[in-house]
Amino acid sequence: MTDARDQGLTLNPKYDDHGLITAVVTDAATGEVLMVAHMNAQALALTVDTGLAHFWSRSRQALWKKGETSGHMLQVRDIRIDCDQDAVWVKAVPAGPTCHTGARSCFFRRVGPDGLTPVAVDLSIDASG
Amino acid sequence: MTDARDQGLTLNPKYDDHGLITAVVTDAATGEVLMVAHMNAQALALTVDTGLAHFWSRSRQALWKKGETSGHMLQVRDIRIDCDQDAVWVKAVPAGPTCHTGARSCFFRRVGPDGLTPVAVDLSIDASG
Repeated sequence: MTDARDQGLTLNPKYDDHGLITAVVTDAATGEVLMVAHMNAQALALTVDTGLAHFWSRSRQALWKKGETSGHMLQVRDIRIDCDQDAVWVKAVPAGPTCHTGARSCFFRRVGPDGLTPVAVDLSIDASG
Repeated sequence: MTDARDQGLTLNPKYDDHGLITAVVTDAATGEVLMVAHMNAQALALTVDTGLAHFWSRSRQALWKKGETSGHMLQVRDIRIDCDQDAVWVKAVPAGPTCHTGARSCFFRRVGPDGLTPVAVDLSIDASG
């Protein structure tokens, strides 16, 4: 069940049919998941090289330097890749709200049996209590 | 730039062409990202209803109750959905290593300019220092 991609130390992203991997961004200070987006090879390379998070915008079909318009850039503190190399985890320091709605995190609603409920602002890493 | 899906309280996942959304699982206690996988509507409903994480296995093309074989289930503490409802964030308590390699998290390698390096076991939420 394991191979060089799973266990080795060679970067060999498993891009999907659109040339993309998934990128999860968490707040380096709080652990909160801020956003989920996608990267192509260029976005990943720019993220590694510049220390600022870059993505591929599927809706605009364009390279997307996060914060280029809003100023709310994501300063990268750490980048991890998962076992099958189709997802990266970026720990970052956000310069402002990450979500286009103005929310600090894109994940501002809780899913429950009766639909969605807004999540109060919470800086702890476990808001489940 | 916003609409009912972005701001409303109706669960209306934006499934991709394969009927899937992205699911990010973090450790409810440490904030560590444990895994990234996918859910179809059935997997999401079962996760909400049972409190145990379910996914859709793209490789096996089958519903996947995490831990059904290994016993390493993920007890769900919280489920969030993002602004465009194409990704969920599941906070969970893992019953054992989440990764099929035996690692606690699938994200056990760091990406740097010179390739990948193993990440030492670290229970803090910010391993960037």
